[in-house]
Amino acid sequence: MDVGVSAMGSPEDRAAIVQLTIDYCWALDTGDWDALREVFTPDAVTDLGEGGQDGIEEIISRVSSALSRLDDSQHMVSTHQITIDGDTAVGRCYLHAQHIRKVTGGSPLFVVAGRYEDHYVRTPSGWRISQRRIVSMWTDGNLDVVQF
Amino acid sequence: MDVGVSAMGSPEDRAAIVQLTIDYCWALDTGDWDALREVFTPDAVTDLGEGGQDGIEEIISRVSSALSRLDDSQHMVSTHQITIDGDTAVGRCYLHAQHIRKVTGGSPLFVVAGRYEDHYVRTPSGWRISQRRIVSMWTDGNLDVVQF
Amino acid sequence: MDVGVSAMGSPEDRAAIVQLTIDYCWALDTGDWDALREVFTPDAVTDLGEGGQDGIEEIISRVSSALSRLDDSQHMVSTHQITIDGDTAVGRCYLHAQHIRKVTGGSPLFVVAGRYEDHYVRTPSGWRISQRRIVSMWTDGNLDVVQF
Repeated sequence: MDVGVSAMGSPEDRAAIVQLTIDYCWALDTGDWDALREVFTPDAVTDLGEGGQDGIEEIISRVSSALSRLDDSQHMVSTHQITIDGDTAVGRCYLHAQHIRKVTGGSPLFVVAGRYEDHYVRTPSGWRISQRRIVSMWTDGNLDVVQF
Repeated sequence: MDVGVSAMGSPEDRAAIVQLTIDYCWALDTGDWDALREVFTPDAVTDLGEGGQDGIEEIISRVSSALSRLDDSQHMVSTHQITIDGDTAVGRCYLHAQHIRKVTGGSPLFVVAGRYEDHYVRTPSGWRISQRRIVSMWTDGNLDVVQF
Repeated sequence: MDVGVSAMGSPEDRAAIVQLTIDYCWALDTGDWDALREVFTPDAVTDLGEGGQDGIEEIISRVSSALSRLDDSQHMVSTHQITIDGDTAVGRCYLHAQHIRKVTGGSPLFVVAGRYEDHYVRTPSGWRISQRRIVSMWTDGNLDVVQF
């Protein structure tokens, strides 16, 4: 993805697209899987690590199985770069995701950091993510936290 | 607090509310306690850890006593989710707060991370925080940094 | 720099200025040095650590030499406070910069965190950074990652 210097679009469109990336985080961290139906298109395609997902049901299955065994998680996104072209847009943002689980004999923390590379589309219900790919950039902490 | 998928409100209102959460951070990290009078209503109620605060004077007392003994601090907020309903709003955001103090025989760093859960109100002087609660999610580093 | 409680300006101006600080990050992390010509004025003056830079060519030389020897980097910015006064503005934001390089016998990670203190100017091509100073607040990890 080459977003380059970003085209701004309207403040409303930009805010709505940034908000999708934020609502995704809170859906994951609060276990509100149904909220993801307001984030993605029904036929969204993602690569969230360990293979791809095709459609909202597979996306929900992927993130819920990964996160529901943790004690807690905190997905922080920032540094959004978005290019809007009419009713479609591409964008990327940085992720700092803390995974929290008490494990025997080690730290309860494991960070995954990277970037999301997204495609967005304007639908009759508002902007949605139609494609998402995570690129992991670094990890830190106790890998046992996310291994079962 | 169940914010769910967020209602956007006007770009101006959203920006003003997000800015409150940011101005709070800079007030704390620069020791500009009077700036907090532009962030909270005079009768704001908070729970910033270790018991609650009732009114701006107690809020200032709480944060100044906690932070003024450190060498430095960095409160970073991101991932804001806000729902605006006329002249009131609720919102939450993530916090990554680094506390910095040279201590004998250990790291000078202690991170507190969590979320702020807020209520906001529009006043004749602009939006203000009327209620704030911090929920700690994880900590990392040397606890001695924040113990005296 | 005393930004204090921030003057908001128009949503479009604020978004454009925040975006400069973001486009800077992605330019650095993707090695897209030419993108910095859309971020700074040609005669911008910066202090990015280890002495100052005078003009865009010196800025590009400074950041490219510092980063091109790493395996990867992630500059995350947040918590922007901006005061706009017509065609000029001042602002500051927080930085959490991860530096990544495999080194023998140690962690591949070194974090530099701090704040950028900026001056901005509106030009015929849009807002640009005219002055930038980084203030380092804390570091963490393996210093060898950034030493050659």
